[in-house]
Amino acid sequence: MRALLKESPGPGIVLREVPLPRYGPSEVLIRVHHAGVCGTDLHIWEWDSWASQRLKPPVIVGHEFAGHITELGAEADAAGLLVAGDLVTAEGHVVCGHCLQCRLGEGHLCRRTSIIGVDRDGAFADYIVMPASNVIWIDRMPTEIGAIMDPMGNAVHTVLEADVPGSTVLVLGCGPIGCFAVGVARAAGASLVIASDLNPRRLELARAMGAHVLLNPQHDDVVARVRELTAGDGVDLVCEMSGHPSGHAQALAAARIGGRVNLLGTPSSTTEVDFARDIIFKGLTLYGVTGRKMYQTWHQMSRFLRAGQIDPRPVITHRFPLEQIAEAIQVIKDGQAGKVILEVGS
Amino acid sequence: MRALLKESPGPGIVLREVPLPRYGPSEVLIRVHHAGVCGTDLHIWEWDSWASQRLKPPVIVGHEFAGHITELGAEADAAGLLVAGDLVTAEGHVVCGHCLQCRLGEGHLCRRTSIIGVDRDGAFADYIVMPASNVIWIDRMPTEIGAIMDPMGNAVHTVLEADVPGSTVLVLGCGPIGCFAVGVARAAGASLVIASDLNPRRLELARAMGAHVLLNPQHDDVVARVRELTAGDGVDLVCEMSGHPSGHAQALAAARIGGRVNLLGTPSSTTEVDFARDIIFKGLTLYGVTGRKMYQTWHQMSRFLRAGQIDPRPVITHRFPLEQIAEAIQVIKDGQAGKVILEVGS
Amino acid sequence: MRALLKESPGPGIVLREVPLPRYGPSEVLIRVHHAGVCGTDLHIWEWDSWASQRLKPPVIVGHEFAGHITELGAEADAAGLLVAGDLVTAEGHVVCGHCLQCRLGEGHLCRRTSIIGVDRDGAFADYIVMPASNVIWIDRMPTEIGAIMDPMGNAVHTVLEADVPGSTVLVLGCGPIGCFAVGVARAAGASLVIASDLNPRRLELARAMGAHVLLNPQHDDVVARVRELTAGDGVDLVCEMSGHPSGHAQALAAARIGGRVNLLGTPSSTTEVDFARDIIFKGLTLYGVTGRKMYQTWHQMSRFLRAGQIDPRPVITHRFPLEQIAEAIQVIKDGQAGKVILEVGS
Amino acid sequence: MRALLKESPGPGIVLREVPLPRYGPSEVLIRVHHAGVCGTDLHIWEWDSWASQRLKPPVIVGHEFAGHITELGAEADAAGLLVAGDLVTAEGHVVCGHCLQCRLGEGHLCRRTSIIGVDRDGAFADYIVMPASNVIWIDRMPTEIGAIMDPMGNAVHTVLEADVPGSTVLVLGCGPIGCFAVGVARAAGASLVIASDLNPRRLELARAMGAHVLLNPQHDDVVARVRELTAGDGVDLVCEMSGHPSGHAQALAAARIGGRVNLLGTPSSTTEVDFARDIIFKGLTLYGVTGRKMYQTWHQMSRFLRAGQIDPRPVITHRFPLEQIAEAIQVIKDGQAGKVILEVGS
Repeated sequence: MRALLKESPGPGIVLREVPLPRYGPSEVLIRVHHAGVCGTDLHIWEWDSWASQRLKPPVIVGHEFAGHITELGAEADAAGLLVAGDLVTAEGHVVCGHCLQCRLGEGHLCRRTSIIGVDRDGAFADYIVMPASNVIWIDRMPTEIGAIMDPMGNAVHTVLEADVPGSTVLVLGCGPIGCFAVGVARAAGASLVIASDLNPRRLELARAMGAHVLLNPQHDDVVARVRELTAGDGVDLVCEMSGHPSGHAQALAAARIGGRVNLLGTPSSTTEVDFARDIIFKGLTLYGVTGRKMYQTWHQMSRFLRAGQIDPRPVITHRFPLEQIAEAIQVIKDGQAGKVILEVGS
Repeated sequence: MRALLKESPGPGIVLREVPLPRYGPSEVLIRVHHAGVCGTDLHIWEWDSWASQRLKPPVIVGHEFAGHITELGAEADAAGLLVAGDLVTAEGHVVCGHCLQCRLGEGHLCRRTSIIGVDRDGAFADYIVMPASNVIWIDRMPTEIGAIMDPMGNAVHTVLEADVPGSTVLVLGCGPIGCFAVGVARAAGASLVIASDLNPRRLELARAMGAHVLLNPQHDDVVARVRELTAGDGVDLVCEMSGHPSGHAQALAAARIGGRVNLLGTPSSTTEVDFARDIIFKGLTLYGVTGRKMYQTWHQMSRFLRAGQIDPRPVITHRFPLEQIAEAIQVIKDGQAGKVILEVGS
Repeated sequence: MRALLKESPGPGIVLREVPLPRYGPSEVLIRVHHAGVCGTDLHIWEWDSWASQRLKPPVIVGHEFAGHITELGAEADAAGLLVAGDLVTAEGHVVCGHCLQCRLGEGHLCRRTSIIGVDRDGAFADYIVMPASNVIWIDRMPTEIGAIMDPMGNAVHTVLEADVPGSTVLVLGCGPIGCFAVGVARAAGASLVIASDLNPRRLELARAMGAHVLLNPQHDDVVARVRELTAGDGVDLVCEMSGHPSGHAQALAAARIGGRVNLLGTPSSTTEVDFARDIIFKGLTLYGVTGRKMYQTWHQMSRFLRAGQIDPRPVITHRFPLEQIAEAIQVIKDGQAGKVILEVGS
Repeated sequence: MRALLKESPGPGIVLREVPLPRYGPSEVLIRVHHAGVCGTDLHIWEWDSWASQRLKPPVIVGHEFAGHITELGAEADAAGLLVAGDLVTAEGHVVCGHCLQCRLGEGHLCRRTSIIGVDRDGAFADYIVMPASNVIWIDRMPTEIGAIMDPMGNAVHTVLEADVPGSTVLVLGCGPIGCFAVGVARAAGASLVIASDLNPRRLELARAMGAHVLLNPQHDDVVARVRELTAGDGVDLVCEMSGHPSGHAQALAAARIGGRVNLLGTPSSTTEVDFARDIIFKGLTLYGVTGRKMYQTWHQMSRFLRAGQIDPRPVITHRFPLEQIAEAIQVIKDGQAGKVILEVGS
């Protein structure tokens, strides 16, 4: 089969013919239809310090995908539920099930997490093997949508870890996950959703997902504008999706007294925090978001998507065949893309 | 001033000229613009067993209203916040502030609750006195909407005492509060809202408030239809607003395993419950709804109304002047009314 | 190996030599040391209507046990965590992992649950096969304690599904699970734990587990006494462990306004409930308890046990070898037993 | 009456004869028996930058106290509950009741908070005036305990804003509030309570309050020791009571993946935070603690105290008459004191 491979340490990803992967008794083999390209894939392409420490080439890249089941291990259909032909996506974090976090229902924080496309073979290939437990039905939804449920799930996790109905929400950073967060906040009944980004193109995507107000820090004083829009209170919930230290400062300042800051964007440097002024005297709650809750996030997301409460497709801006991975990586690097999709098969 | 008075024990309510009420240092005097007529007022008119045991005539009737502040006690503006002229409604439950429930933030369950229009003079009058603490700004909203925030608040309390975004909701009973519950569930991001009532007129109001599916127990098997609509699961949340024992049975049967039944409708008789089958083995949660959370419910409701996420006005079907209280009571009795409004002053 | 078998429809359980069970790739084989005998086993022995409808003989009985792992399937030690020789007990509910409830973290409510000793071969035998996922380490705890973590887990689930620190708790019914509930409430920081039972022997066990006050409905007015002990308020939490309709009535009456009733005891008949007076106007929450949360309950219980915050051993009143199952069943039937243990092997 | 007064800007506090204060209709006059001296009073004595910006002399100092009611305003006993002679303490934060936070049940975060002894006359005097709503009965508890319920309430708020039963807790900083936090964690059913401080005297007080393990950063590697004591996991809950930037670093490192850090100690400088490593990838929750929840904290604390689950008196190390305020301030400054009490009257 075809596969996009990080073949050896160093920049780049190459297309290779590789053998069909073998699956164990509780795993399934999936024919990939669509796959999503993520900022993480850019790090892997560029072989930055994170990637060079984490990946052990050769490994097939890619962790966002949807397709159909073609074969099942002997125990994979124990419950008689999964059937060859089922349209599915999958949670890409393969967890141990036995550690403290797994036992507490916090599998998304499992210490032994093995991530597809990073720690084990991924989805930029004709086929991928997944544990049956990680498989999520997408039913009649297009696989193009299924292929972006992984990043959209990050947004669902970030937004719904708060009491959203009737609330005011600020989304800092309008990359694809930020744009999804805008749509999730609207679907979940937020009264006011403010989106902020330096990039006018991304702000347009946020508008398409339902943002009531767009702010651009280049010409808007974000914190001052948020206060104006909220009768001086600040917002109930800030979703920090930018990962910029300036985003952290804005997040803490723009949250209302007693409010909440959910942090997803991962900064590459440390941030100076005034705990007394910005957290303690404000009675703030901060929450660090990793992955998707396994599997509540997937259920909530499926409900929103099936009911038509969110349509994530406006965020998809580019589609490429597997062969054009270089082009796909380039448009992400250029910062002008929303979500970039690889069209793999059917 | 004019006031609709339960003058003495027995049926009926009479219009009388009475002196302007006096207010204490922490109270305000409010000029009533609009008032809502409630099923409770029907009980008072009819002088049923509840009313005859609870009311001590003479008492001015009416507990749903909005208007503007005309005068303030010396301590009522201590915080410099309330000003004569402010458009307001009010929480009609006047609570003690010192009992266990008040101290736990459960003031809506205060044992010493004194209800306007029942235990103390109410709002079917030109003026009403309220503790400053109970006053709620309605700002630029019409007083007609302000006048129905009390019953709408019951619906907000009922629906939001659950995790609504993405959920499936069944509303049993489409009187005004049931219809509001439909609107609140939609505003809060429910994926599917099913409304059930025997009365086609009320079902139409539920549709106007956003119900996805209407069921009429006269020709629909409610539980069977709910299961069909939810892939056999049942709904996440049942709002029991009918108060009929048949509603309780449907509620317990229609809730999904692990689901929730929030009970607002008050039955006049007892219900036979199979605790093992319907609650314990299903892992259900039941919650009894009294009044409105003081004051979280009012805040959430104000957010929904100001953002235009709910427009409760389709539920208003009749408007009468104060003099036509008999007609107002009659349309409620006939069961063909949604919300009935008294136009008092301005 | 030896096994206590429900060999065919009808009363009784027989000791037989049966082949060692075979285990699949994600299962483990466990040598049983101790097993607990439960009221459910009595139903199976007596072949009552529940048992005759549910069991498909032949099946090995018993669902409470602890022992050590002797062999592991090829995938059972995938995470490198389980090792032959590990002392373990196990969650006896084998769940599907794919249904709505499993996906929502409510595996204890899985519709496809297969229970050991009921739906599949159980633990009253020299060996039992369990899915690796269901295995719980007991480390240095005695297997006698490990063997009763299943029923103790029911108590942990019942009590901790409430905000216990500083609260007042009434436990209705002091069978083994009720007695464990007393101990859990004390360990979790309840300020007052009241235990009620008709049986003085059981009340003594409740006292040994830490109950502050013992009530016997034969000569105490339970609800009146609870009010006296709580300044007229009623208790924050009622744990209904008796399954008697009279227990339900007491539970609803003894809970404080705004309180909580967690229901575990399963009645064999229906109960008349005054929803208006007892649930709605009181703002009560009711919660039906099934099994143990998978696996939060096990974690919390392990913490309590390892820290010595609970010692469940006072509740163990009888020990028998496997051969004396008839005697074990008889002492349970007599109603004078606390927890009854089978000493199987080592 | 006698009063300890910040008479004018600048260091020091002086004892003066002042007129008895006047009370409004919803206020009560209280005869002070005991008062607690707090670090805040030290800042006021020293007239540091915070104090010089916040206080408007002349103001009577002191915010921790208990005594008995001597007189009530006309509306103060509206509910017929408060009576002259009642032994009481009081929440020292006087809040507006109308702002967003007050309306959401977050009165402890009210923006218009006026604090006794800081923004209005305080408790280091023979008498103090308090709003009736802020008064808390202490019943038969000694006023010496009542006088330290304010700081103890900070600890109750810090600890109980987490799921404590069965959890592992690290308390960083063993001043009086840290020591109280140790006692609260034990009373609430924590399985392991670790206390850390540089000062051996304070560690002894923490031991007296029930700490299982004492760590001194001078010779212990706090984070390494916490990991050892928790099987490598880290603790479920860190209570940061020290306000040192080193405490913040330890807090984030010592919390388990998915754990919680509740922050009460207020640092005077900013802290460098690695959001990605320490919060986001760990899935941490941080919560800033201000004051006491009004009034849930007071209720929980009263329950613990009345049931004898906590005895805070080991933390009281010094007692002085009102005249010896200089000595009281000095022992706090020396860092060798636990809680310091002023004996005012009776």
